[in-house]
Amino acid sequence: MDGPDFSKGLVPAVAQDHETGEVLMLAYMNEESWRETLRTGHATYWTRSRQKLWRKGEESGNFQEVVDVLIDCDRDTIVLKIRQHGGAACHKGYRSCFFRRLVDDQWVVDDEPVFDPDAVYRKQDL
Amino acid sequence: MDGPDFSKGLVPAVAQDHETGEVLMLAYMNEESWRETLRTGHATYWTRSRQKLWRKGEESGNFQEVVDVLIDCDRDTIVLKIRQHGGAACHKGYRSCFFRRLVDDQWVVDDEPVFDPDAVYRKQDL
Repeated sequence: MDGPDFSKGLVPAVAQDHETGEVLMLAYMNEESWRETLRTGHATYWTRSRQKLWRKGEESGNFQEVVDVLIDCDRDTIVLKIRQHGGAACHKGYRSCFFRRLVDDQWVVDDEPVFDPDAVYRKQDL
Repeated sequence: MDGPDFSKGLVPAVAQDHETGEVLMLAYMNEESWRETLRTGHATYWTRSRQKLWRKGEESGNFQEVVDVLIDCDRDTIVLKIRQHGGAACHKGYRSCFFRRLVDDQWVVDDEPVFDPDAVYRKQDL
C-alpha cells in the first residue's frame, strides 16, 4: 500500500467523529506518525510547535481510536474517522477545536467546554 | 473580526457538506482568498501548484456556496460548511476528494464518479 505523499512535507490529517461527522481537529503527520497511527490504531501526529511525535491523548487521556482512514485524490491529505475518548479533542476543553463560528462578522463560541484545561494539563505543557 | 492567522503561511480549509457532514476536500487559503470567500460567499482558495487565486468551480461549475465558517482554537485552520454545486468537489469527478479508504492495507475506491473529468476540464488545466 502506498502511503500519503510526504515528499512536499507534512500532511494534514482531519480528525472527524466517526458517528456524527463533526470535524474535531486538524493536525499534521510525518511518515513516522502515519506508521504509528496504523500500527497502534490510535491517532498519532507530529506537532509543529514542539517538533516531536504526538500521541494524541497521551497526557490528557483524550485519545482517538481510528475507525476508518481515507486519503484524497492527491494523496496529500488524510481523513481519520475516529472515536474520541474522553469527550474532547481540543486542548481548550471543547469537544471540537472548531468551537467558534462566524456570525455577522464576529466569532461566536458555539459549544460548551467538556473539561477544564487547567485541571488536565500540567502548566508547563500548555 | 480577527481572521485566521496567516503569519505561519497558508491556512488549510476543510470543505464539509453542510447537510451530510461529509468532508469533500481540503485546500489552502491565503489572506486574499479568505477575504474573497467572505466577500463572495463562494469558497475561494490559493492553489499551491499553480500559485494563484482559485475560485473553486470557476471552470467546472462545481462551485461551493458557503453556509457556515468555523475557525479552530489556534486560528490556523478553517472549516467551511458548504453547499456543493454540480455534485462533485473533486477534479477527478468524485463527490469527495476522499473517495479511497484503507481496507486490509489496501486503498479501495469507495464511491462512484459523478462526472467525467475529461469532458469538463480543458486538457491543459488537468
